[in-house]
Amino acid sequence: MLYLTRKAEFAASHYYHNPDLSPEENRRLFGKCNNPNGHGHNYVLEVTVKGEVDPRSGFVVDLRQLKEVMNREVLDAMDHRFLNKEVPEFATRIPTTENLAIAIWQRLAPKLSNAKLHRVRVYENHDLFADFYGEE
Amino acid sequence: MLYLTRKAEFAASHYYHNPDLSPEENRRLFGKCNNPNGHGHNYVLEVTVKGEVDPRSGFVVDLRQLKEVMNREVLDAMDHRFLNKEVPEFATRIPTTENLAIAIWQRLAPKLSNAKLHRVRVYENHDLFADFYGEE
Amino acid sequence: MLYLTRKAEFAASHYYHNPDLSPEENRRLFGKCNNPNGHGHNYVLEVTVKGEVDPRSGFVVDLRQLKEVMNREVLDAMDHRFLNKEVPEFATRIPTTENLAIAIWQRLAPKLSNAKLHRVRVYENHDLFADFYGEE
Amino acid sequence: MLYLTRKAEFAASHYYHNPDLSPEENRRLFGKCNNPNGHGHNYVLEVTVKGEVDPRSGFVVDLRQLKEVMNREVLDAMDHRFLNKEVPEFATRIPTTENLAIAIWQRLAPKLSNAKLHRVRVYENHDLFADFYGEE
Amino acid sequence: MLYLTRKAEFAASHYYHNPDLSPEENRRLFGKCNNPNGHGHNYVLEVTVKGEVDPRSGFVVDLRQLKEVMNREVLDAMDHRFLNKEVPEFATRIPTTENLAIAIWQRLAPKLSNAKLHRVRVYENHDLFADFYGEE
Amino acid sequence: MLYLTRKAEFAASHYYHNPDLSPEENRRLFGKCNNPNGHGHNYVLEVTVKGEVDPRSGFVVDLRQLKEVMNREVLDAMDHRFLNKEVPEFATRIPTTENLAIAIWQRLAPKLSNAKLHRVRVYENHDLFADFYGEE
Repeated sequence: MLYLTRKAEFAASHYYHNPDLSPEENRRLFGKCNNPNGHGHNYVLEVTVKGEVDPRSGFVVDLRQLKEVMNREVLDAMDHRFLNKEVPEFATRIPTTENLAIAIWQRLAPKLSNAKLHRVRVYENHDLFADFYGEE
Repeated sequence: MLYLTRKAEFAASHYYHNPDLSPEENRRLFGKCNNPNGHGHNYVLEVTVKGEVDPRSGFVVDLRQLKEVMNREVLDAMDHRFLNKEVPEFATRIPTTENLAIAIWQRLAPKLSNAKLHRVRVYENHDLFADFYGEE
Repeated sequence: MLYLTRKAEFAASHYYHNPDLSPEENRRLFGKCNNPNGHGHNYVLEVTVKGEVDPRSGFVVDLRQLKEVMNREVLDAMDHRFLNKEVPEFATRIPTTENLAIAIWQRLAPKLSNAKLHRVRVYENHDLFADFYGEE
Repeated sequence: MLYLTRKAEFAASHYYHNPDLSPEENRRLFGKCNNPNGHGHNYVLEVTVKGEVDPRSGFVVDLRQLKEVMNREVLDAMDHRFLNKEVPEFATRIPTTENLAIAIWQRLAPKLSNAKLHRVRVYENHDLFADFYGEE
Repeated sequence: MLYLTRKAEFAASHYYHNPDLSPEENRRLFGKCNNPNGHGHNYVLEVTVKGEVDPRSGFVVDLRQLKEVMNREVLDAMDHRFLNKEVPEFATRIPTTENLAIAIWQRLAPKLSNAKLHRVRVYENHDLFADFYGEE
Repeated sequence: MLYLTRKAEFAASHYYHNPDLSPEENRRLFGKCNNPNGHGHNYVLEVTVKGEVDPRSGFVVDLRQLKEVMNREVLDAMDHRFLNKEVPEFATRIPTTENLAIAIWQRLAPKLSNAKLHRVRVYENHDLFADFYGEE
């Protein structure tokens, strides 16, 4: 059993706002992240898959296929986008690092064939990251 | 003569658009950076000052003063902002990495007292950065 | 269930010495780390908490509260300090990376409210780190 | 119970080729990694050991011994080498990042005395790494 | 006048050998780098161009064109290659970091149109790099 | 003309104090860096030499000689030391990043034979560094 991790980066903008709260509560809870114009990050995504090493290739997973799935399911949808306005999951969920990790898991898990998704890690910047293992 | 460099980071969003060009020319020139909703980066700013070492302190520049100036003149204005809409320089200039380096130079140069501004470096991400030395 | 990690840095000095051993045994065991004047590191601390995402905020933990607890319980006590002389845990324990991870766990675990402490990682430098999960 | 990780680097070359496949299948499966002249990487190795903290030293493991074992068992054999031709494991196994992690585990596990090997991580470059925990 | 730098990476293998020297002199001069099977690196290339900011685009240089030139002139020729055998410059010159910087300068300088090549930096690994400014 | 840079690291402690100032002035000027017990850093040293590429070796400088000089003149003296107490230059000069760069230049410049010292860069941590080019 081996775990393989591939990183990718995307540049996106977002802001934090809960429509059920008053403007004042939003400001208190989210501080400068509440600015509706948005601000942005160079997100770093780490996708870890888990599986047996295929003796034919020496691979747990075909890296070009993994890259293709990550590009199609995540980067094409999120890179150079305003997450709140352009990524459907964030019409109703706040695009925090936590919720990004969950949304990316939900996009990737059904599309991986040979290996099993083990962990999605999202760095908002170098000193903050969220890990999701698909645990309810 | 010694050169001292301090880094700082800020998270901002921006997009590239030249109002004198047609929508099609903008898309051709700027690609996905032309998305008017904006996208974002964790910008890294490196400010280099140049001066003699003060024998009283061993410093070229008082680091707390330098940090204060960088915070007041740059980070307070740009961190967690949409550069095109909220930073006056970018009402008329396109907020490229190049123009950010120039704008930050123009904000900092008149505010530094003891040491002289030598270079402003702005990283848009880890593989792209611009350097400005105040040269016309 | 989501895991959120925040990094912080502190600059401290330390040395390794076991008073129950002879000077010669100390030198053999600890090498140049036995220098009683101390030497130092830019320690990097990673604190991981674990919890459910609060739908009101999209957060596992309020990041400003987490930062405040890390500052008050760890950084204020250890940053710019000589660990052996100024941090009570190290009056009797040797301030190795391992013992630092345990001491920081013991300081943080009782102070976190909503989320549960999952892991404390301490880097002494970029090629050495210790992880503690609170396992006896 | 504490986990201690030490990093090391080595520069090696390799290529991917399965002698049971046709030249065409090899090219399709491995792309430019199939070039028989080889290409290379600055591999980063992270070795994690697990154990109790020894109250005499404050260490889980004597770092100089760990370093010595890593040098003797791994770096002396693999650094500045063409893995396919000069490292016996890769006479019959393809030197992928996955197989490197397994081979390094098999070299290290029997040689560690006090602490137990917990994980071997191998980075081929900054955006691809494999983890092996000794799980069959 | 503004300086813009773009990074790229390539994985290649090489070895050091001077055919005018005896095998013994080669070993003494080059140590383990003299292994004829080769070893490899994840080279990091930084290309700095210098020019005026074009007010139409805010760019010193069209980044997609720069990337295209770097890919065509350098990466296509050197990535996943054994430099000594597959890159013509190194049939007669030893592929040291220094000579790589010069060879890359000579490949890029005539192909850049608007902006002028200012510096080529090549990292062999994170603690060794060479800079060439085209100075004879 | 080519510039070659080699990095090295050392772990040291220091504090800032000017004996000609009152305790209060020291505290105001140096803040928590004035703690006489010292605190520490993982210093990163970058030494850049400048010279012609020797066609016999492809090197500007023999890297093993450069490493040897850096070890003997700098690391042996400063690694795992309390700079104020154990490094003679800092008996009378305050061991700021600036003064460290100058002291290291003065130690290295007379010991380099073939290539000429071009720059000494010292990082105190990842967001602060000083450059000295030997300019009076």
